Amino acid sequence: MQVHKTVESLKKSISALREKNLTIGFVPTMGALHEGHISLVKLAKMKSDAVVVSIFVNPTQFNNPDDLENYPIALNDDIKLLEKEASDILFCPDVSEMYPEGMLTKKYPLNGLDKGLEGGKRPGHFDGVCTVVHQLFTSVTPDKAFFGEKDFQQLAIIKHLVKELNLNIEINSCPTIRDADGLAKSSRNKLLSPSEREKAPLIYKSLMKAKALFAEIDINELKNIVKNEIESCEEMTIDYVEIVNPETLKSVEKSDVLEKAHILIAAYLGNVRLIDNLPLND
Amino acid sequence: MQVHKTVESLKKSISALREKNLTIGFVPTMGALHEGHISLVKLAKMKSDAVVVSIFVNPTQFNNPDDLENYPIALNDDIKLLEKEASDILFCPDVSEMYPEGMLTKKYPLNGLDKGLEGGKRPGHFDGVCTVVHQLFTSVTPDKAFFGEKDFQQLAIIKHLVKELNLNIEINSCPTIRDADGLAKSSRNKLLSPSEREKAPLIYKSLMKAKALFAEIDINELKNIVKNEIESCEEMTIDYVEIVNPETLKSVEKSDVLEKAHILIAAYLGNVRLIDNLPLND
Repeated sequence: MQVHKTVESLKKSISALREKNLTIGFVPTMGALHEGHISLVKLAKMKSDAVVVSIFVNPTQFNNPDDLENYPIALNDDIKLLEKEASDILFCPDVSEMYPEGMLTKKYPLNGLDKGLEGGKRPGHFDGVCTVVHQLFTSVTPDKAFFGEKDFQQLAIIKHLVKELNLNIEINSCPTIRDADGLAKSSRNKLLSPSEREKAPLIYKSLMKAKALFAEIDINELKNIVKNEIESCEEMTIDYVEIVNPETLKSVEKSDVLEKAHILIAAYLGNVRLIDNLPLND
Repeated sequence: MQVHKTVESLKKSISALREKNLTIGFVPTMGALHEGHISLVKLAKMKSDAVVVSIFVNPTQFNNPDDLENYPIALNDDIKLLEKEASDILFCPDVSEMYPEGMLTKKYPLNGLDKGLEGGKRPGHFDGVCTVVHQLFTSVTPDKAFFGEKDFQQLAIIKHLVKELNLNIEINSCPTIRDADGLAKSSRNKLLSPSEREKAPLIYKSLMKAKALFAEIDINELKNIVKNEIESCEEMTIDYVEIVNPETLKSVEKSDVLEKAHILIAAYLGNVRLIDNLPLND
């Protein structure tokens, strides 16, 4: 696997792939790779000739400095995992390489997709995400890019962004990968204490409960059931529970078998913020 | 000269140029070509291996339906002019080719550059300009693009747009080309009656007067002198006279030899709207 730290050397490799008429699949990550990321690399490998993975902990998408400070880093382990998957290129730039003019974010017209959920709780988060993904797309020039469904709002925003920017990039997604007990794989899971880790599957359990009850119960009541279930665990604090249309991300007010609905949750377990989501009527 | 009506056939030609490693210069126009356009084609020819010119009267940048209706069309003459300049490709798509999903414009973050001047007087104009230029850039994928300084605000906005969109396109500009009596070349000049045409150079004369007086007179007084001069001609009506910083397009309140200042004017001569501009302290 080639490892590039600069846009310049990355671009030379990309040009060489282009000259051979190879299609490029791209998996942007913040590292501390887990099975969720690996499923994206495997799909990219299946759907493209060459796979580029980026590892870049993007400072501008962290609204909380402690969260950035504590974000897990595991570059050596990551490289081993990627070599095992026969990933072709790793791009792991420094901050100054991605933000040569300082850590400024751009504003993108996101049609309100960034307003609630993560965007509501983490001001500026999606400006940071879009700025860095746009910059990475510009450097990698992939034919296809791969994102996890665990970051559900991010996926919707990236699909919109690609359309807004006229980019000829096919956005692919992979379902959330879970531990055996249902906890969604996340780099942040490493930050949980053993006793917190034991309690963490409650988030997925409450989503499954919501799915089971969806057809029968009023939406606001359903959200309250989920909130109460989560907060029955002393160490957990709800950040939000929302039920939205999965395309527009607008709140669904009434359960309707004809309209798609998707539940999204963010909760703190101790100091660690976890998110998860599930379709309610697929 | 190759003539393409569809994006698909254009793209095939562009790919063929790319395979030969030729650089592409692009001159977007609305047709009814005059010496101003030709100066852009000549510069493109000097600075690139192959020149693509587009002719597309973009409906979404016209806020006034009469203006769109009356906009001059001269495709056969245009083709002759471009062949004389040895332009390589002409792209002249139909509206349905450029707006396959209907005449929708996108919103671009323009940092306020679109707020005053033409943008203030022609609501939605720059959304239309940016949408079509972005679409053309996506289709042509030029290395360099060429715009006239007569559309001064447009030039500033396109420079900003290319940066916002991370496009690797060098924006070049050409000075305004004028008739011997000073009237800025414009496709709309064809719409002037002979007696109007005689009066039209007053716009340039008033700009030159402003330049001569700039160091001596208060800015608001200077704008009034220009307005009075223009409206001394019965057939002329001022749309705006503004003195701005040429980069930010923000109003300059005081004349200051150290700050660059640029005067922009829009005026109706009969029913024909004319614009012109001049640096005041270059």
